[in-house]
Amino acid sequence: MAAKYQTTHEVAYYECDVNQTMTFPAMLGIAIKTSEEQSAALNRGPEVIASYGLTWIITSYHITVTRLPRVGEQIQVATQAREYNKFFCYRYFWLLAEDGTELVKIEAVFALMDPETRKVSSVPDEIVAPFGSEKIKRIKRYPKITPITQGQFLPYRVRFYDIDSNQHVNNAMYFNWLMDVLGYEFLTKHEVTQVTIRFDREVAYGHLIESHFQINEKTVDEAGEAVPLQTIHEIKIGEDTYCEAIFTWREK
Amino acid sequence: MAAKYQTTHEVAYYECDVNQTMTFPAMLGIAIKTSEEQSAALNRGPEVIASYGLTWIITSYHITVTRLPRVGEQIQVATQAREYNKFFCYRYFWLLAEDGTELVKIEAVFALMDPETRKVSSVPDEIVAPFGSEKIKRIKRYPKITPITQGQFLPYRVRFYDIDSNQHVNNAMYFNWLMDVLGYEFLTKHEVTQVTIRFDREVAYGHLIESHFQINEKTVDEAGEAVPLQTIHEIKIGEDTYCEAIFTWREK
Repeated sequence: MAAKYQTTHEVAYYECDVNQTMTFPAMLGIAIKTSEEQSAALNRGPEVIASYGLTWIITSYHITVTRLPRVGEQIQVATQAREYNKFFCYRYFWLLAEDGTELVKIEAVFALMDPETRKVSSVPDEIVAPFGSEKIKRIKRYPKITPITQGQFLPYRVRFYDIDSNQHVNNAMYFNWLMDVLGYEFLTKHEVTQVTIRFDREVAYGHLIESHFQINEKTVDEAGEAVPLQTIHEIKIGEDTYCEAIFTWREK
Repeated sequence: MAAKYQTTHEVAYYECDVNQTMTFPAMLGIAIKTSEEQSAALNRGPEVIASYGLTWIITSYHITVTRLPRVGEQIQVATQAREYNKFFCYRYFWLLAEDGTELVKIEAVFALMDPETRKVSSVPDEIVAPFGSEKIKRIKRYPKITPITQGQFLPYRVRFYDIDSNQHVNNAMYFNWLMDVLGYEFLTKHEVTQVTIRFDREVAYGHLIESHFQINEKTVDEAGEAVPLQTIHEIKIGEDTYCEAIFTWREK
């Protein structure tokens, strides 16, 4: 049984947007901090990982939102490194209300990379052992991110403050570029219910990125099933895709 | 004697830049949160201020940095609303190391504005009374911000995440635009020792601002005194200046 690690957090005004609810960069920042605390407590901090010549990277998130945490709310942040296979570690995060109700669930896919060669390494059992993660054979699949067919984009320059103390662009920052293109009207009239995001390449300081998006209005499919409002996103530099995402929304 | 209010804070990795030290937006965010907590504790929260038809605005900061807080450091955040005159309230913040050593001192100038008419109001004594602030006659003066004579600029669009849960652009966000123009090389080779920043107008979502700057290399003045390296900054839209700042730096 994987070890669970839990902290509490009071949601600050500067972690929230005009909707009075927590932003994705703030939620992911707190989630990752909690996993770093667990890793340090289990003697698997960055120095230990570095002693294997490796560093953690996050390749994707799959996020389910019941309700976003609100300004001033006391939340619990729980995490568990549940499973791993040859190349991927599956870590779960939960943001919970004070009474334990689930607000947000984040499934994160981690991999280990050699920072010199930039190559992904297989996961050494000794690194994962203290977390009590279950070794599995299969590779988990998340909702498909369909390509953009009729998109628009806005350009963004990667800023000094987009690089964090870990020396690279914090991948929570991608959400600034993904969300911003949707505009004030959209972002204040809709609530996100689900996000799948995949990080393909790492953007660096000074890069000029394009944040492409397409809005797929809610509809009914051939089988008569309701298909919710979705937005598809691609962060690109020239022809290269750095990040892809699909968001599902409901009207407020 | 003005009431002092103090909290503790653990510096998170996502509050720090590549220098492993806290960013200005993170420091100011935590400072303002502490003052909001003090105000709430003294029954002077935003609803009470709103009952006078008013809201707080910050017109300037004067910041003295001995050493910036580091990733993982436990700091104390103290605040005191020390003085006020007819139109301005002078609030002090201190970020202190665990042993009480002063790391950063922030003097903030607050004013009260009618959000309908956008006019600054005189400060009602009853609003300030619980803080124990001393009433003074004089207006405090901070270092002069000399105008830019030979500048360059970069443009920035005000993003959705730049507006916080208080519905306007958090003035800590101005530091993103002020710092970013100086570039990676400058920002990793120099440490800030002093900042004076004045907010003249409020930028709004969707605005395209210009972040102008001028670097004044260290020199010796006519009297033979050493003048340190300084950068002067102006946030402009067209001919209108929204914010001015002067930073003093030392080499690392």
